[in-house]
Amino acid sequence: MATTGKQLFTTLEANGTLTVELEDVQFADPVGNQVLVRMEAAPINPSDLAILVGGADMESAVYTPGKFVAQMPAPVNAAMKSRHGLKLPAGNEGAGTVIAAGESDAAQALVGTRVSCVPGNAYSQYCLVDAQMCLPLGDYTAEQGASAFVNPMTALGFVENAKADGQSAILHTVGASNLGQMLTRICKEDDIGLVNIVRNDEHVDLLKGLGATHVVNSAGDNFMGQLTEAIRETGAFYGFDPIGGGQSVDTAFKAMERVAIEQMTEFSRYGSNQQKRMFIYGRLDTGATILTPSYGFGWTLSGWLLFPFLQSVGQETVMRMRQRVRDGLTTTFASHYKERVNLEEMLSKDAVMDYKTMRTGEKYLVTPWD
Amino acid sequence: MATTGKQLFTTLEANGTLTVELEDVQFADPVGNQVLVRMEAAPINPSDLAILVGGADMESAVYTPGKFVAQMPAPVNAAMKSRHGLKLPAGNEGAGTVIAAGESDAAQALVGTRVSCVPGNAYSQYCLVDAQMCLPLGDYTAEQGASAFVNPMTALGFVENAKADGQSAILHTVGASNLGQMLTRICKEDDIGLVNIVRNDEHVDLLKGLGATHVVNSAGDNFMGQLTEAIRETGAFYGFDPIGGGQSVDTAFKAMERVAIEQMTEFSRYGSNQQKRMFIYGRLDTGATILTPSYGFGWTLSGWLLFPFLQSVGQETVMRMRQRVRDGLTTTFASHYKERVNLEEMLSKDAVMDYKTMRTGEKYLVTPWD
Repeated sequence: MATTGKQLFTTLEANGTLTVELEDVQFADPVGNQVLVRMEAAPINPSDLAILVGGADMESAVYTPGKFVAQMPAPVNAAMKSRHGLKLPAGNEGAGTVIAAGESDAAQALVGTRVSCVPGNAYSQYCLVDAQMCLPLGDYTAEQGASAFVNPMTALGFVENAKADGQSAILHTVGASNLGQMLTRICKEDDIGLVNIVRNDEHVDLLKGLGATHVVNSAGDNFMGQLTEAIRETGAFYGFDPIGGGQSVDTAFKAMERVAIEQMTEFSRYGSNQQKRMFIYGRLDTGATILTPSYGFGWTLSGWLLFPFLQSVGQETVMRMRQRVRDGLTTTFASHYKERVNLEEMLSKDAVMDYKTMRTGEKYLVTPWD
Repeated sequence: MATTGKQLFTTLEANGTLTVELEDVQFADPVGNQVLVRMEAAPINPSDLAILVGGADMESAVYTPGKFVAQMPAPVNAAMKSRHGLKLPAGNEGAGTVIAAGESDAAQALVGTRVSCVPGNAYSQYCLVDAQMCLPLGDYTAEQGASAFVNPMTALGFVENAKADGQSAILHTVGASNLGQMLTRICKEDDIGLVNIVRNDEHVDLLKGLGATHVVNSAGDNFMGQLTEAIRETGAFYGFDPIGGGQSVDTAFKAMERVAIEQMTEFSRYGSNQQKRMFIYGRLDTGATILTPSYGFGWTLSGWLLFPFLQSVGQETVMRMRQRVRDGLTTTFASHYKERVNLEEMLSKDAVMDYKTMRTGEKYLVTPWD
């Protein structure tokens, strides 16, 4: 009675050949607490791109229907040694309709309903997922519920993390992103200070339109002066960065230290004692992170990932966060898409070359049944 | 009744001119809990060098008796903006004899005794310090007690910090340093695993002679393989680095991640969930810290400084640590010096060019009355 459908797989060989292709897969009947979801919509998030295209040369890749084959440059390929030869699914999250369920009450209760879920193989016509991890969408569409997990829970996670660490303000280095816009709305609702860094004046306007009070354009005149002022006004010595490579974090630490130094009455060769904290939660820039010795020793930088964070806060907090996401799915946590592509179209050169740039406000949605 | 003596001062002007010179200073009579110490010995630690010579061009500096004038390169000078125009004392720690005391019992009790102290202006013939911060040396010489604070308390601090964080092993990136040797002895006494990285085979022998079990030569064949093996055997996912610039921390994180990946049963695009923790506690390399995206998101890097650490652990722990240092001053915490120089000699070109290289085992001791 197994169900058959198309699913995307990505395989990187030891020689650097990356093959991403659709295959017909048999999905087992759900058992116990499992449900089988007919996937209707799945976003392409930056966190999905790493495994889809990584640092591969997509310009000279070979594209055929339902497949592309690309070469990974040697240094990138070496860093990905642990996935060599593994055939991996892709697509963190999506939404669809439960068409079959295991025998548990929780699973049975979802039959026929639309849910948002985090299967890890969302670029597929079907997914088997745990009923506990499904968010029932009620009358929301699949498109409205497709991005109900990664960005909303991450943005909420930042605020949870900041509050747990006694912070009343946050700095975010990519303010205008889909996630950045959610964070702007959350911080406004929760009365948390927020310093947004953006890359152009359009994005300043966009965020101010959402009620942001401190938006600094990194391409504008006197960027460091404005950033310093925003940190001074909000007290944001605590921030999140999805860029990773280059000096994005370094710039934030420098500006934080400037504010801290202003407030010192006595010189210290070791810099200020103001604790400065940054988290890298993505790798939009896959280059090395550069930290200059410009802000003493009172700083901490960590990697930040959603799943370990959720595990650390416990089930009760996670349920509260998910309920808040559901309540605000078309407001606080609304996502917007530039294009809709089916599974074949997402593997075409036109689509790949466009979505891999990850431009702000140009997210793709995969609709496996179109 | 003020006492007059020579003291060293270091001044960096906005134009990058660094002047380090001796001046005759009047020391006020001690009051309350203060004591006046006739300083007999003070080490030149790496943490002192930053304020003494920093990144200045010492080869073409102008040396005259009791004074040198050097130029600070523009980028370094810009980073030191907050000390421009300030005339600063130097010398974190030293030892000497209490020759006068304020009226408090604690201060009076020290008159005539030899003490170790942390005045911040130890390159001086006299220092006014708080009696509470003095460590009575009994029959130890000033030379034996000169380095009783910075290195011993830092090495003990690493172990305290590791234990508080539930760690049973430490990685140290400059194993053969004075501090590294102390750490080796402490870890042996406390049964804490220790991975020492050193730069040559002599240092391997030196540390093995102290009972070190895991010493890896970064200049040797298969360094990464050996480092990985040492981390696997000790479980050292927690380390301290005094280099700061370059890829010293990056190398440690990479090796830690290799061990963690070996232990994973399933591939994760985000790297291992093994928390990897490093602290930068010095800047032997004043270049930028380079962190490559090679070890997922499960890592944290912080600056580490002794004084904030001591403040965070509280007085009781500090007293226990100081007592342990005093008990082991000529064993666990013994320091060795290559040269002894007086205040004039420490400002000569020969001395400066030698001690500023900070070679392992070649520490200088300043003896202000010789």
